[in-house]
Amino acid sequence: MSSQWMDKLVIPSQAKMVFLIMDGLGGLPMEGKPGTELETAITPHLDALARGGVCGLLDPIAPGITPGSGPAHFALFGYDPVDNNVGRGLLSAAGLDFPMTERDLFMRVNFATVDSEGRVTDRRAGRIDTETNERLCRKLAEGIRPASGTEVFFATEKEHRALIVLRGDNLREEIAETDPQKTGLPPLSPKALIPEAAGTANQLTDLLNQARTVLADEPKANMMLLRGYSRYHRFEPMSERFGLSPLAIASYPMYRGISRLLGMTVHAPTSTLEEEIAALETAWPDYDFFFVHVKPTDSRGEDGDFDAKVKAIETVDALIPRITALSPDVLVVTGDHSTPAALASHSWHPVPVVLSAKTCRPDRAERFGEGDCLFGGLGRMSMSSLMTVALAHAGRLTKFGA
Amino acid sequence: MSSQWMDKLVIPSQAKMVFLIMDGLGGLPMEGKPGTELETAITPHLDALARGGVCGLLDPIAPGITPGSGPAHFALFGYDPVDNNVGRGLLSAAGLDFPMTERDLFMRVNFATVDSEGRVTDRRAGRIDTETNERLCRKLAEGIRPASGTEVFFATEKEHRALIVLRGDNLREEIAETDPQKTGLPPLSPKALIPEAAGTANQLTDLLNQARTVLADEPKANMMLLRGYSRYHRFEPMSERFGLSPLAIASYPMYRGISRLLGMTVHAPTSTLEEEIAALETAWPDYDFFFVHVKPTDSRGEDGDFDAKVKAIETVDALIPRITALSPDVLVVTGDHSTPAALASHSWHPVPVVLSAKTCRPDRAERFGEGDCLFGGLGRMSMSSLMTVALAHAGRLTKFGA
Repeated sequence: MSSQWMDKLVIPSQAKMVFLIMDGLGGLPMEGKPGTELETAITPHLDALARGGVCGLLDPIAPGITPGSGPAHFALFGYDPVDNNVGRGLLSAAGLDFPMTERDLFMRVNFATVDSEGRVTDRRAGRIDTETNERLCRKLAEGIRPASGTEVFFATEKEHRALIVLRGDNLREEIAETDPQKTGLPPLSPKALIPEAAGTANQLTDLLNQARTVLADEPKANMMLLRGYSRYHRFEPMSERFGLSPLAIASYPMYRGISRLLGMTVHAPTSTLEEEIAALETAWPDYDFFFVHVKPTDSRGEDGDFDAKVKAIETVDALIPRITALSPDVLVVTGDHSTPAALASHSWHPVPVVLSAKTCRPDRAERFGEGDCLFGGLGRMSMSSLMTVALAHAGRLTKFGA
Repeated sequence: MSSQWMDKLVIPSQAKMVFLIMDGLGGLPMEGKPGTELETAITPHLDALARGGVCGLLDPIAPGITPGSGPAHFALFGYDPVDNNVGRGLLSAAGLDFPMTERDLFMRVNFATVDSEGRVTDRRAGRIDTETNERLCRKLAEGIRPASGTEVFFATEKEHRALIVLRGDNLREEIAETDPQKTGLPPLSPKALIPEAAGTANQLTDLLNQARTVLADEPKANMMLLRGYSRYHRFEPMSERFGLSPLAIASYPMYRGISRLLGMTVHAPTSTLEEEIAALETAWPDYDFFFVHVKPTDSRGEDGDFDAKVKAIETVDALIPRITALSPDVLVVTGDHSTPAALASHSWHPVPVVLSAKTCRPDRAERFGEGDCLFGGLGRMSMSSLMTVALAHAGRLTKFGA
């Protein structure tokens, strides 16, 4: 399903590739500042990469489309983000390293508060702490009796978010989400969106009724809202598609999950960017593709904090020499999407990218910034083409046709 | 058929969008003049849009493809121009506001002159006037007897051009055009291009024989040539796809027809661009998408009159302040294709575009012209992606995936 004709061009190579992904990197000017966050940041090392490498702008999904981080990361790794647009439940399960089977239906839960008439009063149950979440998952696992032939599993994610897995035969993912999206309304029913999902919908209705009883005495988290339904989905691993031995250095569960789904080895979580780079240095001899994920650029963008996002970019820049010291054959620095502080959210604006390798043709980009990337040799490109170009610069692709 | 996965991302919004389309806008230098028509024109208001907005170059169909205005307009409105490449007969019928049914086969007629041996001597019947055309259509409607169970309708377009509609069961559009394309040859037969079209071909042959008899005493228009066969085709309206309430301000029948096919309300015809802008101002509270069509840029290009096309562009520029005074959330100014005066015809050159909105990332375009658009933040883009980008800037699209 994920395989493409160009995969057949892959040839063996010792070349090493690094994808340094600054989540939400792309930006916009804000409050009269002339440049974007990246253009405002002082980034001598990234600028040197831009001068010696090749720059461009990437559309994660398509022009005008604002992506979630999930599909954008599939695009970064060369997997069509529309064909591979799986539900968030699967990404959560992979992120928690849940042992999946093909009979599983994965769902995300938000614990919520409902009043005596069953109306949602807090869609996040007052953001209960993670320990409470763990206690609730144990309580549900003990209290709920699924239908015969079916198993149910609960796993804590963080705060009010958890994963539910229903394991049985003929389960379907075409089910309506139950979050009413605003308070004052009762949860929606997990309705079947196609006739074939009626049996699954019945099981989920029963499961929610049982959960209501089990959680009835909870002061805050007395209800569950379901979303992100996803059946099991196999992705052709990066080793098979690209002949790579990939390592993911990422701490957030979703990125760890995507990495696992694509067959990457996932490094133990780290706390700081400095630790991520140290992990890269230590693991350098053992892999040939390294995905290094940087979260703060996105978080500060989501906060609407222009200056803090600038600082987060400068922190990354300062560590670039430790990456270049490893002499990767191909070093790509980009984001998965734009998160302009001016919008305090993901956006559709294309994402700046720099690719550094010995085989780069000179372009007119002098600094690493959105404006200079307009003159970059990669041009404006679909994000899912990036992996092909990176493999080419790594000498990992042979000629197409005679 | 026209619906796409991104349509599911559409969310409600009050934002207002204007698409100001200068037909045939793109150009070429001519006679030693250094710039294109757009670059030669003095356009302070368009240049201001370019500085504050985002520019680019659009490929209407694909690089190297010269489009007709029909498919190019489908692309402008986000409808795939290849999938939706319907016959000109349907566009004519829509332009004339002909009451269509699903049993209809639409065709365009050119009245022509044939000599006593049946050879075409004038493919446009000396460009007979529109009144003569109307008289001929009445004469044909009275004189022709279609096969049992079939009806036939004639409607005047302009000069030598008319619409014929055959209404019946199992009619097919896979029929050869009958215009021999040069004089001295007899009209071609309306041959079936697939076996299933044999019945329709027989009916058309009979209809043409009857027309020859009815028109035998006409001095000029004594024959009909058929082309642009098209069955009825339903387009998913812009209201359903994009949640828009669209108004078309366009005077030429084909553009009015396309607008109707896509579910736009079509404003009464106007005579001048000034009247079009006045119509926009009056209708402003009642719609949220406005298509304003400007024809003279294309007509002067087709005339090969560089200076007159420059003047037509300057006339549009002078009216831009009346549009910006309405404070549209998104203002797009572009063309449907290029019509360089140097070629006196449509061409394949990509079309300059400027998009103005609060969420534009600065680019390096300082003036609105083809050269500056090379440095525009929209890059070089498929024209059918323009609507998605405009919807994004209008805040009318939610995120794709989690």
